Amino acid sequence: MKFGGTSVADPEKIQRAADRAIAERRRGRGVVVVVSAPGEMTDELLNLAERVCPEPAERELDQLISTGEQVGISLFSMACIAKGAPAISLTGPQAGIEAGGDYTRAQIVRIRPGKIIKEIKAGKIVAVAGFQGAMTAGEVATLGRGGSDLTAVALACALKSKTCEIFSDVKGVYTADPRIVFEAKKLSKISFKEMLELAGAGAQVMQARSLEVASEYGIRIHVRSAFHPQAGTWIVPRENNHMLEKAQVSALALDKNEVRLSVVDVPDRPGVAAEILSVLASQAIPVDMIIQSAPTHSGVNAISFMTPRSFAAKAKEALASAAKRLKARVDIHEHVAKISAVGTGFRHHPEVAARMFETLAANKINIHMIVASDLRISCIVDAKHGETALRALHRAYGLGRKK
Amino acid sequence: MKFGGTSVADPEKIQRAADRAIAERRRGRGVVVVVSAPGEMTDELLNLAERVCPEPAERELDQLISTGEQVGISLFSMACIAKGAPAISLTGPQAGIEAGGDYTRAQIVRIRPGKIIKEIKAGKIVAVAGFQGAMTAGEVATLGRGGSDLTAVALACALKSKTCEIFSDVKGVYTADPRIVFEAKKLSKISFKEMLELAGAGAQVMQARSLEVASEYGIRIHVRSAFHPQAGTWIVPRENNHMLEKAQVSALALDKNEVRLSVVDVPDRPGVAAEILSVLASQAIPVDMIIQSAPTHSGVNAISFMTPRSFAAKAKEALASAAKRLKARVDIHEHVAKISAVGTGFRHHPEVAARMFETLAANKINIHMIVASDLRISCIVDAKHGETALRALHRAYGLGRKK
Repeated sequence: MKFGGTSVADPEKIQRAADRAIAERRRGRGVVVVVSAPGEMTDELLNLAERVCPEPAERELDQLISTGEQVGISLFSMACIAKGAPAISLTGPQAGIEAGGDYTRAQIVRIRPGKIIKEIKAGKIVAVAGFQGAMTAGEVATLGRGGSDLTAVALACALKSKTCEIFSDVKGVYTADPRIVFEAKKLSKISFKEMLELAGAGAQVMQARSLEVASEYGIRIHVRSAFHPQAGTWIVPRENNHMLEKAQVSALALDKNEVRLSVVDVPDRPGVAAEILSVLASQAIPVDMIIQSAPTHSGVNAISFMTPRSFAAKAKEALASAAKRLKARVDIHEHVAKISAVGTGFRHHPEVAARMFETLAANKINIHMIVASDLRISCIVDAKHGETALRALHRAYGLGRKK
Repeated sequence: MKFGGTSVADPEKIQRAADRAIAERRRGRGVVVVVSAPGEMTDELLNLAERVCPEPAERELDQLISTGEQVGISLFSMACIAKGAPAISLTGPQAGIEAGGDYTRAQIVRIRPGKIIKEIKAGKIVAVAGFQGAMTAGEVATLGRGGSDLTAVALACALKSKTCEIFSDVKGVYTADPRIVFEAKKLSKISFKEMLELAGAGAQVMQARSLEVASEYGIRIHVRSAFHPQAGTWIVPRENNHMLEKAQVSALALDKNEVRLSVVDVPDRPGVAAEILSVLASQAIPVDMIIQSAPTHSGVNAISFMTPRSFAAKAKEALASAAKRLKARVDIHEHVAKISAVGTGFRHHPEVAARMFETLAANKINIHMIVASDLRISCIVDAKHGETALRALHRAYGLGRKK
C-alpha cells in the first residue's frame, strides 16, 4: 500500500490511512506501507534550502528532504501502534533499499528485503519511507519526484507481492479530468500501455517509470482514493486479443503544462533533425510530438516539438547555438494545450483520428500539430480551447456515464 | 562549535552561524559544528506526534524528532558550501556516535570518530546532528532535552579538542538574569563547580550532564552569543588556591519552575526519610533541598523538598501511598521561588549566608526553607517576592557593573 502526501497531510488523515492498513493486516495479509512526506513538507524543505542558498549541494539537499518521508513513516507507525497494531517504521536505508546514480535523482539498484520480511513475520505493519534509498556508507539519496510510487512498485517486486495499491486524493483513472468534464466516468480497469500513454499525455495519476516496472514484473496496480472505501481503477496487463478487438478510446487527457518549440528555417539536408534532437538529449530535456514539416520551395523546413513548461528556457538556450550554426531561428509558443485520446487499435481504425479532427473542426478549433500512434492521438490547439475541446471529444467518443 | 535551536532558527541565522564556522576554519583550525533542530521544529514535531496519539511509541518518536537536527545540519552544510567552504553534514549514526539505554533518553556509549576525522583532514567543516546517536542496526535514538550540548562535549573529548564553544541567544553567564537585574554583569569566567550549582539553581545556560563530562575530561567551554562577536563566559576548572581564597559570590539565580512538596506528620523514627526518598528515586523524580524539620512534641515531623513543576503531579502521586502507610499527609506549595547565591568558600564564611538572610529580612521577605553548602545558599520564598529578592541580593553582594 502506498499513501501519497495528500493522504497523510495531517494527523487525522494519518489515522485514516493507518486504519486501512490495519484492516488489511486483520484480513491476514502481510502489509508493507510506503508513506510519502506529509502534505507540503517536501516543498517547505525545498523552500528553506533555497532561502539558504540558490543552488544547494545535492548530497545535502537529499540529507534535508529525505526527512519528510521519515516524518511520514514515524507518524504512521505511531498511529498503528496506538490503535493496537504492532508496527515499525523503516527509512529507505533501514529497509535495505540500495540506490545508485546521482543524488536528487538516484535509481533503486537493489532491495535487500531481509529486515522487512523479518518484521512482517513478527506480525508488524512495516512503514517504509518512499522516495529514498541508501548510497554507500549510510548516505541517503532521493529518487526524484514521484519516487514514492517507484518505491512501492519495487518493494512489491522484491517481496513477490502480486498487487500494489496506490492511495491518493483521486478515486481512480477517469475517461477525462472530472473537474473539467462533468460526465467523466471512472474506469474499472485500464492496461499498462494505455496508462503509460495517458501519463505521457499529461495525466498525473502515477509516475511513468513505476508503471513500466510494474508492467515488466507483472504487478497489478490498484489506483484508489485514500478517503473513500470504493474500489478505484486496476492497471493490468493488456488482454491478448487485441488483433480481434475493435478500436476503442479509453480516456482523454488535456495537458497545459507543455510549450511548443519550433526551429524554423532549417536547411533541408540529412542529419539536421538528429543534430537538433541530440542537443536536447544531451541536456536530458523531455520531448514529445516531434514533427518535421515538409520543405518549402526555398529548401528550408521547420522542426517542432513539445516540452514541459519547466524545461522551456533550458531547451531554448540549448537550441540557440545549434540554430545559429544552421542559420535557423527558435520560436516558442507558450499558450498551447495538448489534447489526447488514448486507447487501442487506432492504427487500423483511422475513423478514430478522423472523428477527433471533425469534432475540433465543428467547434472551430484550429489544430497546430498532430501526432498519432496505435495507442494515442494527440493534437495541439490554442490553450484557450483546451477545455471546450476536451468536453466535445468526450461526447463525440461516447465516454460519458450512462444516463 | 555548537549552535542551539535559536541560533539556526531561520535561513538568515543559519548563514550567520556558517560564517562563524568558516571564519574559524580559515584561521587554520579543524572545525566540527554540532547543530540543533532549527527554532521550534522539535516542539512542532512533538505536537504532531501528540495529535496522532497521546503516548507515541518511543522508538518511533525518536525516528520522528531526530529529523529536526537532520534538517539543521543539512541546511548548515549547504550554507557553508554555497559560501565556498567545503562541508558535509553527518547524522548521529553517520558520525559514529553510538548510543545505548532507552529511546528518547539514550546515553552516548562510544564515539568512533573515524569518519569525522577523515572529513576534517579532507578540509571540510563537519556539521554533526546534535541530540542523537545510533542504536544497533541503524536505529536512531535521541539523548533527551539538552542533548546537543552533550553531543558537543562528547565530540570534543573524542576528537581531543581542548575547547568547545556553545553558541546560543545568551551572551554568557551573568551575575543574575539581566532581564530582571538591570545592572547584572557578564562573568568572563566561572568554574565548573559553580556552573553546576547555578544549573542546579535553575540557570538554563547549559545541560548539567555536559558540564560534568567537560569537567571530567578537562575541556574548556566557552558560552557565547551566536549574534554578537564579543567573547562570552569561559567555564574552566577551578584554580587550586581555594584554601586561601576568601568567600566570593559569583552569581545569583532565581528559579520559579519548582514547587515545594511536604510530607507532613510523618512518625519520627529511623528509615522514614529513606522510605520517602526511595519512592521518588524509583520514579526518577529530581529533588533539591531536602529538609527534615525537628520533631514536634507529639513525635511527628515534616519532610520537605523541591521538585520541578513538570514532575509535581507525578511526585505527589508517588508519595500518596507511602504517606498513607505512614499516616502522613502530602502538601504541595505551588507559588514559591528558589533564590540562590553561588560561589566558593561559603562554609568558612557564614557572613555570606547571614547577608542573604539580613537582606531578605530588610525587604520583609519571609523565608520558607534554607539549604546551604560550600558552593551554594538557596532560600525558598513566596513566588511574588522572587524578583525583589534577586535585585536586593545583587546589590547587597556588590555584583553590579562598576559605574
